[in-house]
Amino acid sequence: MMNIAVRNIQRAKSELVNAFGSIGVATIHEAQGRTGYLGAGIRPVNRGPHISGSALTVLATPNDNWMIHVAIELALPGDILLVGMTAPCTDGAFGDLLAVACQARGIRGLVSDAGVRDIDALRDMNFPVWSRAISAQGTVKENPGAVNVPITIGGSVINPGDVIVADSDGVVCVPRNTADAVLDASQERDTKEHDIRTALQQGESSMDLFGLRTGLEAKGFTYVDKAKDK
Amino acid sequence: MMNIAVRNIQRAKSELVNAFGSIGVATIHEAQGRTGYLGAGIRPVNRGPHISGSALTVLATPNDNWMIHVAIELALPGDILLVGMTAPCTDGAFGDLLAVACQARGIRGLVSDAGVRDIDALRDMNFPVWSRAISAQGTVKENPGAVNVPITIGGSVINPGDVIVADSDGVVCVPRNTADAVLDASQERDTKEHDIRTALQQGESSMDLFGLRTGLEAKGFTYVDKAKDK
Amino acid sequence: MMNIAVRNIQRAKSELVNAFGSIGVATIHEAQGRTGYLGAGIRPVNRGPHISGSALTVLATPNDNWMIHVAIELALPGDILLVGMTAPCTDGAFGDLLAVACQARGIRGLVSDAGVRDIDALRDMNFPVWSRAISAQGTVKENPGAVNVPITIGGSVINPGDVIVADSDGVVCVPRNTADAVLDASQERDTKEHDIRTALQQGESSMDLFGLRTGLEAKGFTYVDKAKDK
Amino acid sequence: MMNIAVRNIQRAKSELVNAFGSIGVATIHEAQGRTGYLGAGIRPVNRGPHISGSALTVLATPNDNWMIHVAIELALPGDILLVGMTAPCTDGAFGDLLAVACQARGIRGLVSDAGVRDIDALRDMNFPVWSRAISAQGTVKENPGAVNVPITIGGSVINPGDVIVADSDGVVCVPRNTADAVLDASQERDTKEHDIRTALQQGESSMDLFGLRTGLEAKGFTYVDKAKDK
Amino acid sequence: MMNIAVRNIQRAKSELVNAFGSIGVATIHEAQGRTGYLGAGIRPVNRGPHISGSALTVLATPNDNWMIHVAIELALPGDILLVGMTAPCTDGAFGDLLAVACQARGIRGLVSDAGVRDIDALRDMNFPVWSRAISAQGTVKENPGAVNVPITIGGSVINPGDVIVADSDGVVCVPRNTADAVLDASQERDTKEHDIRTALQQGESSMDLFGLRTGLEAKGFTYVDKAKDK
Amino acid sequence: MMNIAVRNIQRAKSELVNAFGSIGVATIHEAQGRTGYLGAGIRPVNRGPHISGSALTVLATPNDNWMIHVAIELALPGDILLVGMTAPCTDGAFGDLLAVACQARGIRGLVSDAGVRDIDALRDMNFPVWSRAISAQGTVKENPGAVNVPITIGGSVINPGDVIVADSDGVVCVPRNTADAVLDASQERDTKEHDIRTALQQGESSMDLFGLRTGLEAKGFTYVDKAKDK
Repeated sequence: MMNIAVRNIQRAKSELVNAFGSIGVATIHEAQGRTGYLGAGIRPVNRGPHISGSALTVLATPNDNWMIHVAIELALPGDILLVGMTAPCTDGAFGDLLAVACQARGIRGLVSDAGVRDIDALRDMNFPVWSRAISAQGTVKENPGAVNVPITIGGSVINPGDVIVADSDGVVCVPRNTADAVLDASQERDTKEHDIRTALQQGESSMDLFGLRTGLEAKGFTYVDKAKDK
Repeated sequence: MMNIAVRNIQRAKSELVNAFGSIGVATIHEAQGRTGYLGAGIRPVNRGPHISGSALTVLATPNDNWMIHVAIELALPGDILLVGMTAPCTDGAFGDLLAVACQARGIRGLVSDAGVRDIDALRDMNFPVWSRAISAQGTVKENPGAVNVPITIGGSVINPGDVIVADSDGVVCVPRNTADAVLDASQERDTKEHDIRTALQQGESSMDLFGLRTGLEAKGFTYVDKAKDK
Repeated sequence: MMNIAVRNIQRAKSELVNAFGSIGVATIHEAQGRTGYLGAGIRPVNRGPHISGSALTVLATPNDNWMIHVAIELALPGDILLVGMTAPCTDGAFGDLLAVACQARGIRGLVSDAGVRDIDALRDMNFPVWSRAISAQGTVKENPGAVNVPITIGGSVINPGDVIVADSDGVVCVPRNTADAVLDASQERDTKEHDIRTALQQGESSMDLFGLRTGLEAKGFTYVDKAKDK
Repeated sequence: MMNIAVRNIQRAKSELVNAFGSIGVATIHEAQGRTGYLGAGIRPVNRGPHISGSALTVLATPNDNWMIHVAIELALPGDILLVGMTAPCTDGAFGDLLAVACQARGIRGLVSDAGVRDIDALRDMNFPVWSRAISAQGTVKENPGAVNVPITIGGSVINPGDVIVADSDGVVCVPRNTADAVLDASQERDTKEHDIRTALQQGESSMDLFGLRTGLEAKGFTYVDKAKDK
Repeated sequence: MMNIAVRNIQRAKSELVNAFGSIGVATIHEAQGRTGYLGAGIRPVNRGPHISGSALTVLATPNDNWMIHVAIELALPGDILLVGMTAPCTDGAFGDLLAVACQARGIRGLVSDAGVRDIDALRDMNFPVWSRAISAQGTVKENPGAVNVPITIGGSVINPGDVIVADSDGVVCVPRNTADAVLDASQERDTKEHDIRTALQQGESSMDLFGLRTGLEAKGFTYVDKAKDK
Repeated sequence: MMNIAVRNIQRAKSELVNAFGSIGVATIHEAQGRTGYLGAGIRPVNRGPHISGSALTVLATPNDNWMIHVAIELALPGDILLVGMTAPCTDGAFGDLLAVACQARGIRGLVSDAGVRDIDALRDMNFPVWSRAISAQGTVKENPGAVNVPITIGGSVINPGDVIVADSDGVVCVPRNTADAVLDASQERDTKEHDIRTALQQGESSMDLFGLRTGLEAKGFTYVDKAKDK
């Protein structure tokens, strides 16, 4: 690991980043070919928020939050702080003081592969956080990691400046250089889902709407009229 | 596994099914001899709902939701959709579109041994869901399973047409052919607990109310007046 | 294990215990040198409460809640019930009837290394509970454990009469004989954090406030102006 | 749960049961339509053995091994002891003394959804055991369960008298009334796999042998000659 | 946490410590009233060894092995190194170099609540290790903990100088001041088990040997001659 | 996800790849700045092997092994098959037939983020496998993924053609374009460790060898001569 902080990263245009804010994580994940999801282990600490922003990445060492301080200083308004780990750790590397510092810089939220604390205060401050754990356990400032380098969370790679979207389903990363196309595909999917929703509400079968009868028989699937009752 | 969908299953009478709707899962679980609980791993996706219904069962393959579509088409109003898996999987096999389809058919809720997504939309729609995981990860329609066959979730067997009750403690399954007796026992237990609650509120000791002093001494248990202070 | 219940334990003065009630778990954990935290596995069953009290300890055997009944009878107003286990278990050893019994004795809440049930009723009663699991699975009264003996939860030792504080971050134990000093240190920390919060809100960098630039370079950390774009 | 022990159960013929002893668990699992596997959580305590036998089932309560004693007394030579749980538990409900008792009755091995202990002694005695956990934690004899009733382990239902096969991949259950057909299908599959193995060793591609080129293109899969080097 | 190393601790006499070396962990755990077991999560890295020794305790911070170096320097021949953590961590805090240092000081083995690495080398050196994880991930020397203070692993408290016994079932701690009595009780239990083993081998039922028929009926348990065949 | 197979990837020179075969995973992980480790969850299925090779990568969908067949056909002697997943899955996507196919193509081993089966046969064939799970559960060939694209396992990114080393501590990935330098650093570290080992065997303290006394006092660490005995 190079112990560096990269000062100048490229970010997607803010109009583009913001346009993702009204689209659900599951929809975006579908629209970009089912990639970029940070997995079921990253959960919102307080239910409710739905945000988008530009990835400000941290690669942190276990039990250490030094790099988070370094990263906040390099933030621009509209960033989301993404904390990856060099090894698994649940310690509470982020709390209300860091959230105050984030808000002062215009950071929109935190996504962490480690733990967070002061979660009641985070809720009262309206600072949105997604994390792998909640823990009061404190951390130190002894072992540098890196800032604005590529990280991975839940099997997805996040590069600094990628577009991040987070809601109650979790978090998705959209690479910066494909964000335009993914936004279009996401919006198209949203529109299409609206029509499907209407059709379903009117009683149409999803078997017909999605063409799901085709192939069932070929795979050996059959309908039977009655099971033998036990 | 037989790849079949059974069209005509027997269901308990709706009066019976509905009568369970006001009784807690823990009480029913006790009343039927501590059986039928689907375990601590099945949690409500949104806190609040308490429902009862008739089991419409799905045996799904990992990362595939084809059978859920097949099952919804076979639903009757008052059913609850129960999704068991042939192998462990956390993918989001159910989302808001399927919930719309469920509501259009009068399905009261979903219980899934896999993952679900669009959980904010599910909350806004008032469609109750219990699941093992929350995940935006999408699924395919390639590998048929079965519909309305016996399944297991959390160590309990669920037959199609069994009575299902779900609240914040989780989910319990009451076999159709013993549902009458279990309802009686559950209501009796509820009544009895009301009296106990009153007695406890008035300051009686649970040691007396439940006869818990008997046997303590025989098992070598003793009261001591004071521990040596460290 | 000695199968005993200790009747007369020493408790901290109620003024002292109560003074902890307005201080966060993470702050107290820090103030006593990052000890006493019961770990990330102990979570509030219903979000919201923040309580302090005197530890009434139970050492329970798996699938058995006999000792909880014994303990409640020995409670004084202001106690918090702490349930440790002789072996891991998620069963629902505590429910609404026991909560009624607790409230009748002035017990302020429950912290359990096992499972609890009737959690909607617990919320409606305003009885605060922290636990490792939620499960409707019932328990028996067959195997005595002990009451008011030292227990461990999440790697921390809890002695009867210790001060317990619990909020949304989890639970911390403050040994009775150091509680005075820990309260002072906690309050001092709270005051100090107030000043830091103000400085951060005014835009100061946490790197300056905490002196975090020192040492970075010595550990090989460098700032670079621009990463090579991919 | 009915607290009963069923004395006379039907078993498959010993020739049939024994014939399964030379076939791998994965092969049998395939041959019966990918059903009956007890899951990845049930592992051999000591690597090596490969056994088949007739299921002698126990439904045990957490931290209690009373029913194992009851079951052993009802065993016939050729049985395998299958221990299911009413709730999750890792305690060491089985050790070397019970293994001696099993061997004296001709029981061929143990499969347990809980924990076992004395595992060095079990290895020295050549008594094969598969379990979810290894734990020295002892259990009691206070809470009866049942013997020779249907149980579930890892999502599969096991009826007393079913055929059980266990090897290093885990454990599979073959229902008694389909065991004949499953044996035939398993042996046929074994033969077929022998031919495939030979073809593969001679350098044929599995893509051709299994007809895996068909459909790839239709699903949008393409071969590209060279990726852009980073 | 006090950051201290205690130089002079009391140890049990070596004859006493060594006498435990031939007794199984499960037996000792039983003989001292089912206390002191370090839980099912602590497993031998290489199967085979069975050791006893005097506890040399380390309280380590996550991702840091500085204190292990401090502890080894304070070791006496016959010690076993016990590493507890201030917070959960799987990093490989111990490897072959530290094992060489341990052997040079006469340390008999390692028990760690974190991870270890170089496990092939540990096997080749015959240095016995029990741990919660195996991981190549390296650690730092930045955050002191403590040496020869009380620690907890798996819910059991370990004081420096306690007697430790480890075999394939895991690890048990015997407090120094009760070790004499526990040794006697363990040996008595071993002798008794020898007689039971003989009786079981001769075909006696464990139901008779342990008096397990008594009470079954009173708890509602019944034998039935035949289940209705499905 | 692009559903592609890349036919022509760049590989490191075989001399370079092979030179890593005698160096431990932990050493290489250290030598490249503690990066590239695939985590504590990837374990050898059979203990013993220590291999190096060139990464042939597969991105597979849950419960599907189609891409493994595609990849094997593209293998060159000296490759190691690396299977990443689009979502978590423990199914047995690889067994003895695929191992035969691998050996026929000169593939040296498998590293999988999913499950494997037929593990006794794998041991008998001397085909080395590391995986997250062992499971007899079969998979299908319905949902293409990709071959020779970047994947992640355990938080590390693996590009096709990277150097892979695996031993009992797990698996490490060395990027192709830094492999030369990492090999040098690894060998240097090995040499240095040899000298340290000798010094430790001769009784030198690791505190002196690694300069670990410096800084202890500054961090508030102190030696005390005697703890108060309890």
